[in-house]
Amino acid sequence: MTEKNILLAHGSGGRLSHQLVRELFLPVFDNDALNKLDDRAEVFASGVRLAFTTDSFVVSPPFFEGGDIGKLAVCGTVNDLAMGGAEPLYLSAGFIIEEGLPIDQLKAVVESMRKTADEAGVKIVCGDTKVVERGSADRIFINTSGIGVVPEGVSISGSLAQPGDKVIINGFIGDHGIAVMAERHGFSFTEKVVSDCAPLNGLVKAMLEVSTDIHVLRDPTRGGVATTLNEIASQSNVGVVLREDMIPVRDQVLAACEILGYDPLYVANEGKLLAVVPAQSADRVLAAMKKHPYGVDSAIIGEVVADHPGKVVLSTGIGGRRIVDMLVGEQLPRIC
Amino acid sequence: MTEKNILLAHGSGGRLSHQLVRELFLPVFDNDALNKLDDRAEVFASGVRLAFTTDSFVVSPPFFEGGDIGKLAVCGTVNDLAMGGAEPLYLSAGFIIEEGLPIDQLKAVVESMRKTADEAGVKIVCGDTKVVERGSADRIFINTSGIGVVPEGVSISGSLAQPGDKVIINGFIGDHGIAVMAERHGFSFTEKVVSDCAPLNGLVKAMLEVSTDIHVLRDPTRGGVATTLNEIASQSNVGVVLREDMIPVRDQVLAACEILGYDPLYVANEGKLLAVVPAQSADRVLAAMKKHPYGVDSAIIGEVVADHPGKVVLSTGIGGRRIVDMLVGEQLPRIC
Repeated sequence: MTEKNILLAHGSGGRLSHQLVRELFLPVFDNDALNKLDDRAEVFASGVRLAFTTDSFVVSPPFFEGGDIGKLAVCGTVNDLAMGGAEPLYLSAGFIIEEGLPIDQLKAVVESMRKTADEAGVKIVCGDTKVVERGSADRIFINTSGIGVVPEGVSISGSLAQPGDKVIINGFIGDHGIAVMAERHGFSFTEKVVSDCAPLNGLVKAMLEVSTDIHVLRDPTRGGVATTLNEIASQSNVGVVLREDMIPVRDQVLAACEILGYDPLYVANEGKLLAVVPAQSADRVLAAMKKHPYGVDSAIIGEVVADHPGKVVLSTGIGGRRIVDMLVGEQLPRIC
Repeated sequence: MTEKNILLAHGSGGRLSHQLVRELFLPVFDNDALNKLDDRAEVFASGVRLAFTTDSFVVSPPFFEGGDIGKLAVCGTVNDLAMGGAEPLYLSAGFIIEEGLPIDQLKAVVESMRKTADEAGVKIVCGDTKVVERGSADRIFINTSGIGVVPEGVSISGSLAQPGDKVIINGFIGDHGIAVMAERHGFSFTEKVVSDCAPLNGLVKAMLEVSTDIHVLRDPTRGGVATTLNEIASQSNVGVVLREDMIPVRDQVLAACEILGYDPLYVANEGKLLAVVPAQSADRVLAAMKKHPYGVDSAIIGEVVADHPGKVVLSTGIGGRRIVDMLVGEQLPRIC
């Protein structure tokens, strides 16, 4: 690596994050489960196929329109399990708290975790709390790790996209990032932007009920849709063509992005998934998604091609095409 | 709770930590696995009996005599699984890094994790990295969560101590706490105090090979031997009598404790376990422990009694007896 010190961009989910993983973590930890680079590891315990994942949450501020760090921590880990088609069962909760945090705020976060866990049908079965001195952390950080069981016949991975597959998203992009940014900087919109933060395991279950032939599922969190599709293109060694006019973005998110110089394709989502599905089952999966509360605004937004492997190309409304790279640098730190 | 804000003592592992768990976390999360208050949850996935645990590490400084935050993070979680008699299999690694951390230091920590994982025979299969701005964390925090399988016939819990049982420890107490404290404050001793940080699953396996009839295993980390025995006394509703003259403490640890006003019974260990074993198998288990590299200095240090349930009593060398309470307040913050 060329950098000598850790930069904020190493946590962005974009190019430097990937470099850190590829050049520092993978060569040292080096094992098949990790090397697959999916959002969760698939491992076996006494013959049972488990999904196992971990995520730390450092979102600032910890409370925002549509959620808080507790809801986020449960959704993030539930979704990482669900993106493997796994049924999430158990979560852990590890708290790092800055001395002085009002106990009422901790209680609100914990209650939010329970409520979200109930919705997702998971149990929070183990935990840990550390407290550090004032100035050694920022209010509250939460790690959630999760265990799920992968059903028979399900095989979903970032490396399984094939030319001809359709790319589906379950609704509007960028809501989470803009909601947190607005809270952080005290911006207000005529119409409030609310984080899309949601547990997606129910939606995935509904999708798998109409077709187990789903190649890739991934939630476009840090780094947004653009970075996630780049990961898939790279892992599967295929190209992706995105149709700009099909991507659902709310007007107020577009407006905020224009003012701030953001591209909504790079803004974080916390209740969205990208599904890569064979063309012949795409309409069936899409119909099932639209029937689910978290999929009402689902749309086919692109397709997988054999051309330009490892690259994502945006086909714009007026007929142009441009390459959509992985997030470079850090657009909005501490978004999750 | 009487406090309005989180204090350092809420993370001490002592009285306020227990109050936080009992009065805030348990009533909200409320489920059988969590309510048992063991160091790991026992859960079932497709009929397989799993142990699942989580721990965040915030030790300051992150490098010290005998270890570093990486070694600690692997040992801590491996040991929490082993304390249930489980065979640890897989770990996750979640990093929260302060912007500006030298990448060489991160590399050293990661390599230390791998080395310790190899020794313990576990794989680090999933991970996550977040970076926060300077001043929003202190160099590096690590969460490790772990999955293990509980073998048939093993039933170990803090609630299973019975009057007549012997209490065994696998060696000298207080080394970890004093080693970290010395590093933090730049103290030096004629003879260096080295952290006892070690993965104990091999030792536990050796113990279970000579007797599966082990009632309780617990590692006396934050809050030390005194707090851990209080937990066991409370969970099992029994009394514990400790024999002061049998407790192994190094001279330099005793000396450091005297100067600093610490009681070694409350100083953290990271490579120690307390075993509560029926009297008839105590000698056999002790002999097996002494044969293991991490149990050479094992000793029977007390016994479980029906008297004074919930309380730990120290029988001193000169014939006196005093109650040894759970840690009150915070003796040494950020010890793990």
